[in-house]
Amino acid sequence: MNRKETIQQLIQELTLEEKAGLCSGLDFWNTKPVERLGIPSVMVTDGPHGLRKQKQGADHLGLFDSVPATCFPSAAGLAGSWDRDLINKVGVALGEECQAEDVAVLLGPGANIKRSPLCGRNFEYFSEDPYLSSELAASHINGVQSQGVGTSLKHFAANNQEHRRMSTDAVVDERTLREIYFASFEGAVKKAQPWTVMCSYNQVNGEFASENKTLLTDILKKQWGHEGFVVSDWGAVNERAHALEAGLELEMPSSNGEGDKKIVEAVKNGSLSEEVLNDAVERLLTIIFRSVDEKKENATYDKEAHHALARQVASESMVLLKNEEEILPLKKEGKIAVLGAFAKQSRYQGGGSSHVVPTKLDNVFEEMEILAGKADVFYAEGYKLDSDDINEQLILEAKDLAIQSDVAVVFAGLPDRYESEGYDRTHLHIPANHQRLIEAVSEVQPNVIVVLSNGAPIEMPWLGNVKGLLEGYLGGQAFGGAVADVLFGEVNPSGKLAETFPQKLSHNPSHLNFPGEGDKVEYKEGIFVGYRYYDTKEIEPLFPFGYGLSYTTFDYTAISVDKKELTDEETVDVYVTVKNSGTVAGKEVVQLYVRDVETSVIRPSKELKGFEKVSLKAGEETTITFTLDKRAFAYYNVQLKDWHVETGVFEILVGKSSTDIVLSEEVNVGSTVSLPVSFSRTSTIGDIMVHPHAGPVLQEALAEINKNSPMMEAVEADQSEMMAAMMKYMPLRTLVSFNESFTEEMLTNLLKKLNDAVSQVVAH
Amino acid sequence: MNRKETIQQLIQELTLEEKAGLCSGLDFWNTKPVERLGIPSVMVTDGPHGLRKQKQGADHLGLFDSVPATCFPSAAGLAGSWDRDLINKVGVALGEECQAEDVAVLLGPGANIKRSPLCGRNFEYFSEDPYLSSELAASHINGVQSQGVGTSLKHFAANNQEHRRMSTDAVVDERTLREIYFASFEGAVKKAQPWTVMCSYNQVNGEFASENKTLLTDILKKQWGHEGFVVSDWGAVNERAHALEAGLELEMPSSNGEGDKKIVEAVKNGSLSEEVLNDAVERLLTIIFRSVDEKKENATYDKEAHHALARQVASESMVLLKNEEEILPLKKEGKIAVLGAFAKQSRYQGGGSSHVVPTKLDNVFEEMEILAGKADVFYAEGYKLDSDDINEQLILEAKDLAIQSDVAVVFAGLPDRYESEGYDRTHLHIPANHQRLIEAVSEVQPNVIVVLSNGAPIEMPWLGNVKGLLEGYLGGQAFGGAVADVLFGEVNPSGKLAETFPQKLSHNPSHLNFPGEGDKVEYKEGIFVGYRYYDTKEIEPLFPFGYGLSYTTFDYTAISVDKKELTDEETVDVYVTVKNSGTVAGKEVVQLYVRDVETSVIRPSKELKGFEKVSLKAGEETTITFTLDKRAFAYYNVQLKDWHVETGVFEILVGKSSTDIVLSEEVNVGSTVSLPVSFSRTSTIGDIMVHPHAGPVLQEALAEINKNSPMMEAVEADQSEMMAAMMKYMPLRTLVSFNESFTEEMLTNLLKKLNDAVSQVVAH
Repeated sequence: MNRKETIQQLIQELTLEEKAGLCSGLDFWNTKPVERLGIPSVMVTDGPHGLRKQKQGADHLGLFDSVPATCFPSAAGLAGSWDRDLINKVGVALGEECQAEDVAVLLGPGANIKRSPLCGRNFEYFSEDPYLSSELAASHINGVQSQGVGTSLKHFAANNQEHRRMSTDAVVDERTLREIYFASFEGAVKKAQPWTVMCSYNQVNGEFASENKTLLTDILKKQWGHEGFVVSDWGAVNERAHALEAGLELEMPSSNGEGDKKIVEAVKNGSLSEEVLNDAVERLLTIIFRSVDEKKENATYDKEAHHALARQVASESMVLLKNEEEILPLKKEGKIAVLGAFAKQSRYQGGGSSHVVPTKLDNVFEEMEILAGKADVFYAEGYKLDSDDINEQLILEAKDLAIQSDVAVVFAGLPDRYESEGYDRTHLHIPANHQRLIEAVSEVQPNVIVVLSNGAPIEMPWLGNVKGLLEGYLGGQAFGGAVADVLFGEVNPSGKLAETFPQKLSHNPSHLNFPGEGDKVEYKEGIFVGYRYYDTKEIEPLFPFGYGLSYTTFDYTAISVDKKELTDEETVDVYVTVKNSGTVAGKEVVQLYVRDVETSVIRPSKELKGFEKVSLKAGEETTITFTLDKRAFAYYNVQLKDWHVETGVFEILVGKSSTDIVLSEEVNVGSTVSLPVSFSRTSTIGDIMVHPHAGPVLQEALAEINKNSPMMEAVEADQSEMMAAMMKYMPLRTLVSFNESFTEEMLTNLLKKLNDAVSQVVAH
Repeated sequence: MNRKETIQQLIQELTLEEKAGLCSGLDFWNTKPVERLGIPSVMVTDGPHGLRKQKQGADHLGLFDSVPATCFPSAAGLAGSWDRDLINKVGVALGEECQAEDVAVLLGPGANIKRSPLCGRNFEYFSEDPYLSSELAASHINGVQSQGVGTSLKHFAANNQEHRRMSTDAVVDERTLREIYFASFEGAVKKAQPWTVMCSYNQVNGEFASENKTLLTDILKKQWGHEGFVVSDWGAVNERAHALEAGLELEMPSSNGEGDKKIVEAVKNGSLSEEVLNDAVERLLTIIFRSVDEKKENATYDKEAHHALARQVASESMVLLKNEEEILPLKKEGKIAVLGAFAKQSRYQGGGSSHVVPTKLDNVFEEMEILAGKADVFYAEGYKLDSDDINEQLILEAKDLAIQSDVAVVFAGLPDRYESEGYDRTHLHIPANHQRLIEAVSEVQPNVIVVLSNGAPIEMPWLGNVKGLLEGYLGGQAFGGAVADVLFGEVNPSGKLAETFPQKLSHNPSHLNFPGEGDKVEYKEGIFVGYRYYDTKEIEPLFPFGYGLSYTTFDYTAISVDKKELTDEETVDVYVTVKNSGTVAGKEVVQLYVRDVETSVIRPSKELKGFEKVSLKAGEETTITFTLDKRAFAYYNVQLKDWHVETGVFEILVGKSSTDIVLSEEVNVGSTVSLPVSFSRTSTIGDIMVHPHAGPVLQEALAEINKNSPMMEAVEADQSEMMAAMMKYMPLRTLVSFNESFTEEMLTNLLKKLNDAVSQVVAH
């Protein structure tokens, strides 16, 4: 028997109670075994940017101590790399650590969209853009799963805030869900088949995600073809039988038997079909046995190699946001003031379920000393870590040091208490003592560089006072080494922002509706999330999506397409030539956006549809090929319940960021799908007139009416824009009220003729 | 018999067919008479800022020539006055003209909210703010109706664009309708009882306004107590019987008998109750006979006096937007260049149904010559009126003239073709030749003043180049004299903007959703219309709502309240002292805004709740009293279906504009209404804990669970913000999953106890 047959056999042999039992955890981290049938218990445990396997004998809630594991940059940092291969490597390393620790499924990555910078968990998510987010999530999943370890793509869906996350109802229109919030998951599911998908705590349009059949079965399993199982976020199950019916196979953690009881009861009283339960068990056993089959006995991993990878990843994820007068890289001579407690105690990861105990931990200051060459590096604390209070003595010491130095590097950002799973921020400020340190130092030292550690955007009223700014995000355990590499030019920075930094919180598109009222949050900004909003609203951000500087320069020298005309069933190749025009090697993230030039539906100014990170030596040139398919031009049409391309011209925009478009081309895409049309008495004359088949029919009828009509006389007599507009917008029925000779009966007949003309077209 | 009894009698005597007949027009402008019973035909005709009574023998559609009448500034201009008394005077004058022309009902004013500056008909509407709009509409109505002439408050409701106005569906949430779009009508209906209300063409949430019973009956007639009748906008009726059932009494224009037939049929087949028809006829006859009773035989009016009033109104409505170096008022000496064709052919009114043939028409240039004293006034055309094309010869002539002058006054704005009933603008530019003129002149002349004629905001990329800017709106037939008065200081400008001028179109709150997709426009910005949006989003406008300069200065010297604590059943008086601290007499619009300091619902930063225009001599001081009632502090609560005040602190903000707040006070308002509460298994622990009666019950239960619970141990052990937040946001049901000793049964019992505790409170 193959595995599939074994599993079918097991389902036959399992009792109803045993099957129900498999649908929830044994405890906090393990599935239930059925020992008499050889079904093992497997462990699922937190990630995603490092393993958080709880130590034996710790609390039963999985909140505290865990075994050491490599702490990579969290997703917000990883995303800054825009590097599919690099993130895949991180996935591979994580998979190795899971094998070594006997973990079957790593609970991640998170693909929720950054709707608001306030969301306390943004540091665990990739981007505000669904394409970028899904591509990076897919790389992460493929990396982990290449090692025979499962992932859990989370938190599905519309879980974009921590505020009231277990009860709030995310009210989101269908098109927005499809184009933004679902799309981020869709690509990852289709490209990488995560072994499991984790449903979120919240409600989506009135139903808990855990009980939302549209979400878990219709879309995830049927439309996207997800083959694994769905696990609840810990404690997300409301009514267990409903959840199973909706497509939620595994409740976590253990429900202490309550959930199992409800399933058994529901099957017995007929409200739940046993078929549904059997299907669920099949999905569960398929993954459990896949884990067994792919288990590598006595696996180990190379802690030093993983630390080195963490350092590389961190250095290629940081985003250089400002570099006036080429203040960076730092010269390896003179005196360098290193200021701020973060320089000795970095904030390198976020709080909550993703919290990792690192295998080792870099100290920024020490790493800077190592790379400083002939430069002398000095430290002053600047502020206390555990308080926001300004300590004037520490400020004074920092200023003194800054005055005596050639350059000052200030480490600042968000302390642990500012952002975490479980609650959202309410503002975008850094602590008063961090801000004061930056301001005080820049009063006395013209050469100030700020290095930030934070999981999400902040406001920067002090930006004009500093020459250099490096966004370090939460850089993982090797952040220290990585930041030293970038500051001293050992690594040429190549990160780009995967999210917009607004000038102020109020500019964020969700601002008027975040975090909602009571248990309801309405996503009224719709598809206008992130740069889609700032671009279309022409609100200048502090730093735009896709932005990031390098120590070299890149020229975008040519763009071409393999065809100028295509249908929505064809693809088009776009060739872009990029040259490193500077004097040092570097990496560039080439970004491709698409703009629908003329559209009858509401669309953003542009949308990201391709990106490639290329590595170029000084003077080197390369040509990248992007292949665009229907999806690159389509919007989600709620009438068709499908993606749809509106025939017309599309601009292909290639650039260094969402606002720095350097090259563009145009293509004409033709739709092969017609939208259903039918006319009624309230259809406007203008809409009918432009229809290729109904138009002439109406034209003829109007000519007839025209012969003896005061309205038509008037229209003929007056060629003003107003009359033309009025006529165009008139409902067909007004022919009756405005013409004595045109009756309701004639209207009914005309309508029939018009709709006949339309349906003939469809029949072709 | 009194009138009421006569009408009852008539209803008995009328045949079904006659009654149905009364429910639509005889022709374009007149109601149907029933001669055998002495029911006359009365005339209703366009307004609202002047009478547009069609000449006998003109076309049958009412589009062209009309008898001369005084053309006052259109509503956009009138609103700039913020002057209830002045607008009342305009209403009185209009009423007199209607009496003289035998018109029973003047079709206006329009109280639609300016959602987007693009709406082609904004020049006919007052404001973006419902309070200001309804106050001014009420003054207008009271003025007209004081003369025994009816009005038609229009276009009810949510008709905020011309694009597809006869078919589009305005999708607007209930709270937004109540607080913004309905509120603008509500105040006017309650304060002024317009004889008629005109329903709009569009759909509101899926139903045509003409067939929307919620709108026309439940809200307008029942909740607001409207006593008159509803008339359709011309051609707005879709299905006549449905419309009658919904509360639309009069279809206009004549339906050529088709509508009458449908009513008769519906009564006969029982789908429409004859009672409904009788009620409609009663409302119609009540107004028709009121008109008869109040008819003044052989009425005439004083054309010169009305022209003088039009001049006064225009001069007090204009808004001085910029006055650097006190460039205005103009000195009556030296050389003044008057540039731009608008200086000799003003744009003084808008296009469409409100178009008036004026009794006389001022010429700006001539009026300036009259007031110029020792100054020499010269004219150059600058641009052609009928084209946007730049005429370099005309530009050159204007520049030449400007160079030789001491100051240049450029007349520019929007030509007729740019804004009209029937279609919307698609951008906020003025014609290229107007813009070029301003730019060319300001290159050679440092003292440039621009005077604008336009019905709605424009973008002003040239603003930095000019010293003076006077917003003239569409100033009516005496605009010429009025503008001369203001330019030469005969009148001290006192207008304030009744709408925000954005820096660019894209900043407007409706931008992402205007004018919608196909026949659907979603008001996703919700209550954030106009300054409510710019304020809350911190997007700096070009000129804020309420802004306007004067030739004198005003000091706001004191604010006080008659109580600091009140309930929502009480009122509070606010006293504000204002002083003319300059050297010339002037008028100031004192504005009062209210801000809910702490609120659990989404609210704008501030909302206008009071305004007074005061006239002060140089050095004079006065104290104004504002009385604020519940509505000043309330939002519309969709659960209660009523206005509701959330107990707490409110700021009372008094200032010169929405962004220039000078004085403030705080009051504490206590609600006398409790919101209904009940708890379920998904209610959060935090929500229950803060309830004064359920909280202690849960506290006790938790203490019991606590005794033997790993979760509670963990919570106790960890005092982090994350744990606190997690606990607060947990649904009650998680007590079961996270505690072995707490069963579903215990949960059910606990819930019962909690809800008992809550309902005991309600019973008190």
